[in-house]
Amino acid sequence: MLDGNFDTFKKVYEQITCYAAAITPENAGVEIPNAIAKARETKKPVYLTIPTDVVTANMMSRAEHPQRKKTDRASLKEAVRMIRARLEVAEHPVLLPDVYAMHYGLGQQVEELAEKMNIPMVTMMMGKGVCNENLPNYAGFYCGKLSSDGAARQLVESSDCVLAFGAVWNDYNTGLFTDQINPLAVINVMPDHVQIGKTVYPNIIIDDLVDAFPADGHSWTLPQQSPFPFDSQDATDDALTAKNYYPQFQAMLRKRDIVVADAGTFAWGMAEVRLKKEVTYIAQGGWGAIGYGLPAAFGACVANPNRRVLLFTGEGSLQINVQELSSMLDNGCKPIIFVLNNKGYTIEKYINTVDNTEYNNIPNWDYHKLSEVFKQDAFTVQVRTNNELRQAIADAEKKCAKQLCIIEMITDPMDAPKIIHKMHQTVLEMENKSEGLLTLFTGKERI
Amino acid sequence: MLDGNFDTFKKVYEQITCYAAAITPENAGVEIPNAIAKARETKKPVYLTIPTDVVTANMMSRAEHPQRKKTDRASLKEAVRMIRARLEVAEHPVLLPDVYAMHYGLGQQVEELAEKMNIPMVTMMMGKGVCNENLPNYAGFYCGKLSSDGAARQLVESSDCVLAFGAVWNDYNTGLFTDQINPLAVINVMPDHVQIGKTVYPNIIIDDLVDAFPADGHSWTLPQQSPFPFDSQDATDDALTAKNYYPQFQAMLRKRDIVVADAGTFAWGMAEVRLKKEVTYIAQGGWGAIGYGLPAAFGACVANPNRRVLLFTGEGSLQINVQELSSMLDNGCKPIIFVLNNKGYTIEKYINTVDNTEYNNIPNWDYHKLSEVFKQDAFTVQVRTNNELRQAIADAEKKCAKQLCIIEMITDPMDAPKIIHKMHQTVLEMENKSEGLLTLFTGKERI
Repeated sequence: MLDGNFDTFKKVYEQITCYAAAITPENAGVEIPNAIAKARETKKPVYLTIPTDVVTANMMSRAEHPQRKKTDRASLKEAVRMIRARLEVAEHPVLLPDVYAMHYGLGQQVEELAEKMNIPMVTMMMGKGVCNENLPNYAGFYCGKLSSDGAARQLVESSDCVLAFGAVWNDYNTGLFTDQINPLAVINVMPDHVQIGKTVYPNIIIDDLVDAFPADGHSWTLPQQSPFPFDSQDATDDALTAKNYYPQFQAMLRKRDIVVADAGTFAWGMAEVRLKKEVTYIAQGGWGAIGYGLPAAFGACVANPNRRVLLFTGEGSLQINVQELSSMLDNGCKPIIFVLNNKGYTIEKYINTVDNTEYNNIPNWDYHKLSEVFKQDAFTVQVRTNNELRQAIADAEKKCAKQLCIIEMITDPMDAPKIIHKMHQTVLEMENKSEGLLTLFTGKERI
Repeated sequence: MLDGNFDTFKKVYEQITCYAAAITPENAGVEIPNAIAKARETKKPVYLTIPTDVVTANMMSRAEHPQRKKTDRASLKEAVRMIRARLEVAEHPVLLPDVYAMHYGLGQQVEELAEKMNIPMVTMMMGKGVCNENLPNYAGFYCGKLSSDGAARQLVESSDCVLAFGAVWNDYNTGLFTDQINPLAVINVMPDHVQIGKTVYPNIIIDDLVDAFPADGHSWTLPQQSPFPFDSQDATDDALTAKNYYPQFQAMLRKRDIVVADAGTFAWGMAEVRLKKEVTYIAQGGWGAIGYGLPAAFGACVANPNRRVLLFTGEGSLQINVQELSSMLDNGCKPIIFVLNNKGYTIEKYINTVDNTEYNNIPNWDYHKLSEVFKQDAFTVQVRTNNELRQAIADAEKKCAKQLCIIEMITDPMDAPKIIHKMHQTVLEMENKSEGLLTLFTGKERI
């Protein structure tokens, strides 16, 4: 604002970080460890601003290492006692590990609980990737009324004991707030507290609760696994559609892949693609920000040069920050990038309830030629049918050892997975109820 | 932060706008007119957030139109009296119209004052474009020690009466705070006050002061106009350098052109290219944010389909948001775009005082092929010599009636206008004084 205020950026970032500080020689010894500790504790971003002349200055003092928050043992004991009591009478318990279980690296421990107690495990949008979806305990994907016809919805909504780990009840996870979980049946283990029904047990670090979880002496019978939406591949050479390409994605996934799904139809379709063991899954759940995928894949490649990175992005998302493809090529990254070219923001067309939203169309690029502009070698191929995609995947799996691969998938502009059609139906119903889009954006009260 | 706070964006924008409000049916009738009035009054951005369901709601009440701030007539009278007194004894007055004179559309009135009183007029970085630089009154560009060797610096620094209109004393305008203007000699007419020496005359709307300016009865003798840095073209066919291409830019400019200069070496070099009458000049002075130019040129094309738009951008800036070139092509915009390809952030290499700053190099693209990726027709040409540029400009001036034109200029990575070399020298001197870069970024106290 040309007002001489050099604090503006810090004030902006204060709103979207969990800790922000301006470093001075006087406070560096305290604020830097504070910020790092806070990032570790909350798994959320922190912000430090370091003026140019401070970079090489000497610290004036050094603080003791900030104390890690500790669990209130009495609160923990009480929570564990109550969980045990709930489990003793539970007839149909179900595990619902979500985003914080993933951020706190507790996926494997939750899997072990599922196996030990022999109970089914269901995932949601935000926590996609938290567990091995090939375990016999895996029962599918839950998303309120947007859930597919498998067993997951029935399991969760009729359960008398929903063991949630780090679950967030936002629009993404609840299928635009169409979930019908009995709130009194939910045990939600959050990063720093546990909620059981309406009661909160405060000051419990999530790791301590997981360690103390009373899984002994309880065992149930796993329900028969229902078929999953993308388990069977289509052998015909039809035009590419969500129905035939998602099964191909599921089939190609390997153990320890890093899968990045950008926002848009891919984020919703990929949510039902079953992941193998130790797959890292990266999506932009909180804000649904398009353009998150490509730079996230760039980061994944740099951080894990020995793991295979697969990026699934719409062409609308790719256009947001396509220049990072140049940075990836320049840094020798070799992901396989699936670009869904459906000529616009397809998901927005489904969220809209009016026709001809011209602003959801975007320029059609020749994605083939991007690597020529960037003066780098890449394997690029354009596919329009089921078999062309199968061949392209086979080729890319060979080429990706030495080259970045781009598979451009041309589909009908309105082709989308089933869940997107259900989303459209839900939005229509909301509008018929004269609620407008209000409930979508402001949330609803939860216990 | 997934904390259910829907106010986050508003809080972010509050930091970088002069007014921010969340619209409700209850406050819409007040807040919308307030925000518009505030934007008009300050010429700064305002922010309104309008939830989806509020868009079609009815306003609950309507306020009277917000009152426009009014000038304090006594304060104005006193300021005018003091300006008159100053002018009566002034021997070497000089006009220094700057950024707020431009934002408040007062350029022509300031020119008229210059002509009426027959005094020289000097521009600075932030206010570039405020006046016709082909008037006999125009005396050049002032930028502290970074000023070129012309008369402007001597005129301003030895003046006993600097008539500044909307001048901001930031790093850009003062040549990294190397200016040596006598603060007691400065009359600065600001948007809502006048400062004369150390005294502030508050609550004076800038338009009212300009209308009441006591120019009658005073007249001086214009000093002989010095030659300007880019008045003479070089006829040789040497490799492209700042020395030969800026004169070509100056020669090609026409009345009523819209000239957009992105940050980087172009912003500094273009500051000394003399502008014809009624040229609109757009640059990113306040933050020096690269990547501002291309979208600014896009906006200029859409807003003024009948005026010629010239964009001068570095390739580093272009890579920031190159996808907007696709949007421009898609919207039928036909600017002439000069892309300076010097293989990196040249200005940063000069601001640094260490060698081999590899992070200032960027990928080298084939800019020719961009229009192929975007599947649009464009005139693109790459030039390496003085004559090639001359021919390319002649061609583009014909083609731009029907096509977007891109002239890629290949230069040595360290080629830069003289002012950048002076900037480097200044930074070196600062560091030798062991002040580090501190004075660059924190400003210094001013009266």
